[in-house]
Formats: sequence, structure tokens, C-alpha cells
Amino acid sequence: MSLSPLIDELIESLRVLPGVGPKSAQRMAFFLMERNKDGALLLANSLSQAVERIGHCRQCRTLTEDEVCRICSDRGRNSSKVCIVETPSDVMMIDKVTGFKGLYFVLMGHLSPLDGIGPEELGLDLLANRLDSGDVEELILATNPTVEGEATAHYISEMAKKRNIRSTRLAHGVPIGGELEYVDSSTLSHAFTDRRDL
Amino acid sequence: MSLSPLIDELIESLRVLPGVGPKSAQRMAFFLMERNKDGALLLANSLSQAVERIGHCRQCRTLTEDEVCRICSDRGRNSSKVCIVETPSDVMMIDKVTGFKGLYFVLMGHLSPLDGIGPEELGLDLLANRLDSGDVEELILATNPTVEGEATAHYISEMAKKRNIRSTRLAHGVPIGGELEYVDSSTLSHAFTDRRDL
Repeated sequence: MSLSPLIDELIESLRVLPGVGPKSAQRMAFFLMERNKDGALLLANSLSQAVERIGHCRQCRTLTEDEVCRICSDRGRNSSKVCIVETPSDVMMIDKVTGFKGLYFVLMGHLSPLDGIGPEELGLDLLANRLDSGDVEELILATNPTVEGEATAHYISEMAKKRNIRSTRLAHGVPIGGELEYVDSSTLSHAFTDRRDL
Repeated sequence: MSLSPLIDELIESLRVLPGVGPKSAQRMAFFLMERNKDGALLLANSLSQAVERIGHCRQCRTLTEDEVCRICSDRGRNSSKVCIVETPSDVMMIDKVTGFKGLYFVLMGHLSPLDGIGPEELGLDLLANRLDSGDVEELILATNPTVEGEATAHYISEMAKKRNIRSTRLAHGVPIGGELEYVDSSTLSHAFTDRRDL
């Protein structure tokens, strides 16, 4: 017997969250109803505000509530360097840790012909216009080091080459603090080939 | 630099969920905004509906949107047996797996004098009235097998004893499918003492 259709519905709805299965959804629902109704209301408001107002930046395609995002509209940044990433969270990450002061372009995915994701779905026409404008001197290709990410980086580097624009790719190598023993073989072989003088 | 105050706020709000830290909150926020805005809206609605309409059952104190919950108002159930539990999820669990067809009483916690949780906070006056009504023949004390749960069960069993009502406690023993080697010592010692004829 169902205790309460409303609670059942809440448990079901919580499962839209990635990584939340039936058990944790139930735990979350009861926790919120028993101990944090204020928090639940706050979350409901944030969600509906975000759904209503978040869209894509007209220039770099990242998620934002502004027409042009805060990074793109920051006059202090160097518009001659553009870093290409797959997702908005990559922007957040790179901006936080690298000190990069150029601009971004967010693909919102990677090339994946089998899923019907081609250059157009990634906004590469928009990127082409930007490259044609003559402003850009370097494209930093920070797509994921996966098969699809590499293919996407390759495709974009061809676009850059045709226009005589430099394109770079993030270095591969052993992670800081890792132990060689646990590094996978292709990373280790890359790190060995790209060894640096001290 | 913050990408978007609205997304920051959404990430912060998602942290009201138990077990969700900054990393998973960020992942959830981007996932919803990139791929499942419909799901996010559904969740927002379920949350605000639940916050607005879920309260406590007047009879057993469980969470419900009805004045008297569906279990308490089910005439087909045996009102002479009342199972005492700490939380509404315990009701769900016991109802699903045990085939118990009596009623429940939900403490919404356990006795914890240091936190200011005494008999009144657990609704034990309400339970006393119910015991006084003469309807109840057996109290099944299904509080957690923790120090506080045991103390709470003991307190309630004294209330029952004064009124000549039988009270029972869930059996302790080795879990089905477990290995003896991994059973903790006090559980094993209980299981040994309470051994049964075959």
C-alpha cells in the first residue's frame, strides 16, 4: 500500500538527478519532509528559476542567464586566445585552476555521427564565423582525451589550419602526485615521449 | 569568476539533499540544465507540492497529505496490533516486506534527552490515549536496535505494562545470507541465546 501518492511522486521525481537510485531518492524525500522543508522549498525555487532563465551564451554557447555570458562580456580578457571545451563545467574548472585569461567556446558535446551529432549541433558554424573575423590567434583544444574528444579536436584543428590559426592541445603526461605504477600504459608512453629538459 | 549566479545558486541549493557534496551538486546542476530541463521542472513542482501539502497523520503521525493516512483509515486492517517505528520509511519497509496487517505509530525519532527530545516530542501522550481506549492488544516495538532505540522501546513497554497490554520486540539474530564470520559479536551472542528447535 502506498503511504502517500505525493511522497511517491517526490521520490520518483528525485530520480531525475544523476546518480540517484530508488533507495537514495526515498532517503532524500523523507529527509526533506521530516527535517528540511525550507531547504526543499529553496531547491524548488532554484530549479524553476534556473529552468526558466538559463539559456546559452550567444557567443560561446555556455549556460548562462545573460544573453552574452560574463566571461565573453569581460573586456579585460584576451579575445585572441579561445579555449574549446565540451561542457560548461569544463569552463568552470579551467577558469578556476589554470589562470587562463582568454575566452571559451563550449561545444556542449562532441562529434558523434552515430548519435546524429555533427559539426552543426556543436555550433561549429558559429566558431567558423569567429575564426573568420580575424580576431583569434590561438585555439586551445581542451576536449576530453577520449576517442570522440580527439576526433572533435582533430576536426576543429583542420578548421583552424585552413585559416592559418595556431591550434594547441593540452599536454598528456603522468598526473601530479600519482605513482608511475598505477599510470595507464598509453599515458605513460605519452609522458615518456614528451619528456622535458630540466 | 562566477559563470552564472543562477547556476551557483542551484548548485548551492542541491546541497540540501543528504549525501550530496559540492562535486555531485555541480554535476547534477549541469546535467539538469544541459539535458533534462523537463525533469528539473517536474522535480521543482513535486518539491513545492510536497512541502505545501505533506503533514502528519492525526492518528499515527506518519507523513501524509491526508488528515488521517491511508493505512490508519483502512477499515480492513487489524487495529488491535500497533507497530511502533521511528520513521515513516520504517512503515514503508515493514509494510512492504512483512505482511503485517495491523496499524502503526510513528515516533518521528527516539528518546534523546540531551537533544531535548522527550516523550512529548515523540507524541507518546497521543499513544497513551490510544492505549487507554482499550482497542490495542499488542504493541510491536520496532524501534532501531541502537542504544536510543532500545531505551525508547523500554519506555514504551513500561507504558504498555501499566495497562496490561502485551508488548513485543523484533527478534535479533544472524542476517539471512550472511556469513557467521562477519556477524558482530553481540548479534551472534543474541542469536545463540535465542536459538530455536528444528
